[in-house]
Formats: sequence, structure tokens, C-alpha cells
Amino acid sequence: MGRCVNFQAELEKRTRETEEIIRRYLPEEEGFAGTLTKAMNYSMCAGGKRLRPILLRETLRLFGGEERLCEPFMAAIEMIHTHSLIHDDLPAIDNDDYRRGRLTTHKVYGEAMGVLSGDALLNYAYETMFRAFDLGGNRDAVIRSVRIMAEKTGISGMLGGQGVDVENDGKPLTREMLDYIYLHKTSALIEAPMMVGAVLAGAREEEVNLVEKVARDVGLAFQIRDDILDVISTSAELGKPVHSDDKNHKITYVTLFGIQEASRQAAFFSQEALHILESLKQKNEFLLELVTSLVERRK
Amino acid sequence: MGRCVNFQAELEKRTRETEEIIRRYLPEEEGFAGTLTKAMNYSMCAGGKRLRPILLRETLRLFGGEERLCEPFMAAIEMIHTHSLIHDDLPAIDNDDYRRGRLTTHKVYGEAMGVLSGDALLNYAYETMFRAFDLGGNRDAVIRSVRIMAEKTGISGMLGGQGVDVENDGKPLTREMLDYIYLHKTSALIEAPMMVGAVLAGAREEEVNLVEKVARDVGLAFQIRDDILDVISTSAELGKPVHSDDKNHKITYVTLFGIQEASRQAAFFSQEALHILESLKQKNEFLLELVTSLVERRK
Repeated sequence: MGRCVNFQAELEKRTRETEEIIRRYLPEEEGFAGTLTKAMNYSMCAGGKRLRPILLRETLRLFGGEERLCEPFMAAIEMIHTHSLIHDDLPAIDNDDYRRGRLTTHKVYGEAMGVLSGDALLNYAYETMFRAFDLGGNRDAVIRSVRIMAEKTGISGMLGGQGVDVENDGKPLTREMLDYIYLHKTSALIEAPMMVGAVLAGAREEEVNLVEKVARDVGLAFQIRDDILDVISTSAELGKPVHSDDKNHKITYVTLFGIQEASRQAAFFSQEALHILESLKQKNEFLLELVTSLVERRK
Repeated sequence: MGRCVNFQAELEKRTRETEEIIRRYLPEEEGFAGTLTKAMNYSMCAGGKRLRPILLRETLRLFGGEERLCEPFMAAIEMIHTHSLIHDDLPAIDNDDYRRGRLTTHKVYGEAMGVLSGDALLNYAYETMFRAFDLGGNRDAVIRSVRIMAEKTGISGMLGGQGVDVENDGKPLTREMLDYIYLHKTSALIEAPMMVGAVLAGAREEEVNLVEKVARDVGLAFQIRDDILDVISTSAELGKPVHSDDKNHKITYVTLFGIQEASRQAAFFSQEALHILESLKQKNEFLLELVTSLVERRK
């Protein structure tokens, strides 16, 4: 119990620190293009758990890396994530008016600005990452990191998953396709920050591969737990509407396999992730607890 | 006259070569994300003059650079340009059904795929540029080049211009704002490839700055000539509808200053660009003719 309270406090501290780091990298809102940058910053400051940048820094810490070097990447991964949320919310895709209780970007700034501010955040993520070249770290590690970020964001990563998800909206899905969507839409943007943390810290190749596998499993377990919680929770417990998958005729791990088998699968990926993390000779107790909280999430 | 015929033949040859280079860098259309990559390639293969990659390579040749190293950047600048066209054509922005006589991407693949394939092309431009790190050239020059590409694409470049253009659609514009839009929407994506050509060829800092100025002037002259041609041409001469600016109540150099003064301004920027190019100790006769054809365009 003491450990739990401690973890919560530590998580809040790290979230605040991450928030400050991200804000330092946001664009200025001055000049003619002020509205565009306001729209970018509106969505970047809309809250959110900042999990990806936190995972990035904690993985860097696990391997004893220099903290300063990872800050541009912490901001950049959040820009890429936010870019995907803005475009997801557009009328052409999910058509959502609210996110986390606030109006979505295109509802406040108009649809054209919604498209452009999403584009601008994706591009600004690269401009931000490239600032790591000015910090005097290992050049090869920075080059490797920007390439990982690009690959996990693009058609072999998150955007590939989005494409398949959008294309098959409302159609029957096989497990193979569902796995593809989860691995690309969710896991890829967890793999990127954790791998970058490891690479920037100078982890060995086998270690980077293990970290990728942990992140992959965390993404899958998180997503399958999401499917399960939608069915077994009450709206009050979850803090958002439940049974939405059923109402939207969405194919999930639960509709494909039932709750019991879905739970077994989630447990399998969770255990694999935790087992790999525990087997490393380096330790980061906070990272272990964070990953545990993600894969065993109850809301 | 002989020179002109020669130039046309040389331009066609270079356009074909550029087309081949670009095609080598397009993504595979296999696997689950096949439709997304098909949508990317549909728009990448929709024709177009390939001016930006041609300008990139000719500027590299001007300074005697190694050709192989610039190929990923030639493909990447065309991906960035195409990304901007796909998103521009979306219903949320210009709502165009046709471009160069073919249905626009969102008309063929749907609006959601229009958003995502534009995103994917922007991101793939970075993945493509990063392949230059594998070609064994000067690492610092490649890093400098990707940073130039990012800056000229983002809020300080093309996307900044798009944002101001979209925001002020149908509103009165000052010359300052019109210049901002032309410099960012048009000049920035000419500055990027020409500067990258110079940087990859190892040009000196002053030379890179002069090339940036040439590109800036070319963009402005090209854009102002566009304003003039819309008024003075017949539809048959131009190969597209004329008087569209007037019909759309668009503010242009012609509506702000009249044809005579607009022509004077275009001539000023043209002469400045050509004067700088001619003053360099390095020579590239084809580049000089290409720039001349752009700034003195009659259609």
C-alpha cells in the first residue's frame, strides 16, 4: 500500500516535470502565423497523461543515459501523438466534438486549421527532434533515434495502423487484422519512445530489441484491457461511456474471443513485458511499476 | 532559337530522369496498409513538372556535388509538395475535385484516406531523407539538409504560409501579408531544394545564402507572373480557367498594384535572381535557363 501511494506521488511529480519540458519546446504564438501556432498549442496543452514522454525518459534512466539529450524527443513524441489525435477527431475520420471534456481543435479553430495544425505538429516534431543535434551528445544515437521515430510514426507504424482501421471501419475483422491495428496504432507509439530512450542511453542492440518487445506487449495488453473494460465496467468507474464498442458494432478482442480468453491474452502480454523488464540487469523500479499500472489498468 | 529547342529537350530528359528517381523511392503497395500506400502513390504519380527536385539536382551540379547523395532529397521534396497538394484539395480547405485533369486523392480514396495519405507522405519524406545517412556522404551536410527541409516545410515555411492563407481567405490583405503568403507558400519550397543542393555539394555559407535569395526571388516572380497571367491570358493560352482571381475576389499583386506595377515587381525579382546566378563563379547553363523560364513564364 505504501508503495502504491509512493508510486502515485512519483507519477504526479514526473508528469509535472514532463509537462514543463514539453512547454519549453512549444512554438511561439507571434507573427502572422499566430493562429496556426495557437491551434497547435491548444491541442498540445489539452491535458493528457504524457505517458509516452515519461516512458521515454524512464527507459533512458534504466540504461543510465544523459537526461538533457532526451528532452527534445520527449516533446516530439507528444507532438506526434497529438497530431494523430487532431486528425482522428476531424469530421472526415471520427468526427468528435470533444476530447477530455474540451472542444476538439477543429471545433475551436475550424476544419481547415484542424488539418493544418495537425500537419504542422507532425512537422514540428521533426524540427524539435533535430534540436538534439545541438546538444552535443552522440550523433549516431540521435540519427538512429530520429529514424526510429519516423519509422514508428509512418506507414510501417502508427499511420499504417490508422489507414487499416479507417479502411475497415464497420467491416468484419480477422484476428490478424485486429492485431495489425493494435500493433501499429497503439504499440508503435510506445515502442518509439522506449527504444529512443534506450538508444540515447547507449543501450546494446539486444537491449534495444528487448525494450521494443516490452513496448509492443504493453501496447497490446493496454489495448485488450481497454476492450475488456468497455464491457465489464460501469460508466462511473471508467469515467467515460461504456459498452461503446458494442453500440458501434466494433470488432474487439472481446467480440472475437469472449471476455475470458481476452483476459488470458492480456495477462500473457502483461506477464511477458514484466518478465523481460525484470530479467534485465539494469533496474528502474518506477518504470516497472508504471508498466504494471498500464498493463493491469482498471480504468 | 537553337538554344531554346535544346533547353526544351534537356528539360524533358531531366524530367524523365527525375521521374525515375522519384519512383525508386515510392513505398511498396503490399500488405494490410496497401490502400494507404496506393493513395500516396496515386498522388505522387499524378504528373507534375518535378521542378523542385530538378532545381535541387541542378543546384548540386552548379557546385559540383556528388549526385547520388541528393536523390533521397529529390524524392522527399516532391513528397512534401504532394502532401501539401492533397491536403489543400480537401473539402475542408479548397474543396477541389480535379487536379491536372485527374480526380483528386480524396475523391478517389475518400476523405479520411485523403487526410491520412497526406500525413503519410509528409512523414515518408523524412523516412526517405534519412536514407541519405546510408549513402556515406558528409554527415553534417545531411543533417543540415534535413533541418533546412523541416524548417522550410513547417510553421516558418510552407505550412505557416498555408495557415495565413486559409485564415485570411476572402478577407482584405495588405501587401505585407500577401508577401508573407507568397514567400512561405511558394518561395519556401523552392528555397529548400536549392539550398539542400548547395549544402550537399559543400557550397560555402555565403553561396548557400545567395542560393536562398535566388530561390526566394524565383518564388516571388513566379507567383506574381501567375497573378498577371490570370488577367492577361486567354484560357486556351494558359491551359486552365482565367480571371479566376477576379471571380473569387482574390487579392493578388494585380488587384493591389495594377498590371503595370505588378509586372515591374516581377521583373525586379526575376532580374535579381538571374543577376545573382550569373555573378557566381560556378556556372550551370541549364539552371540559368530553367530559372529564366520560371521567372519569365508565359503560361
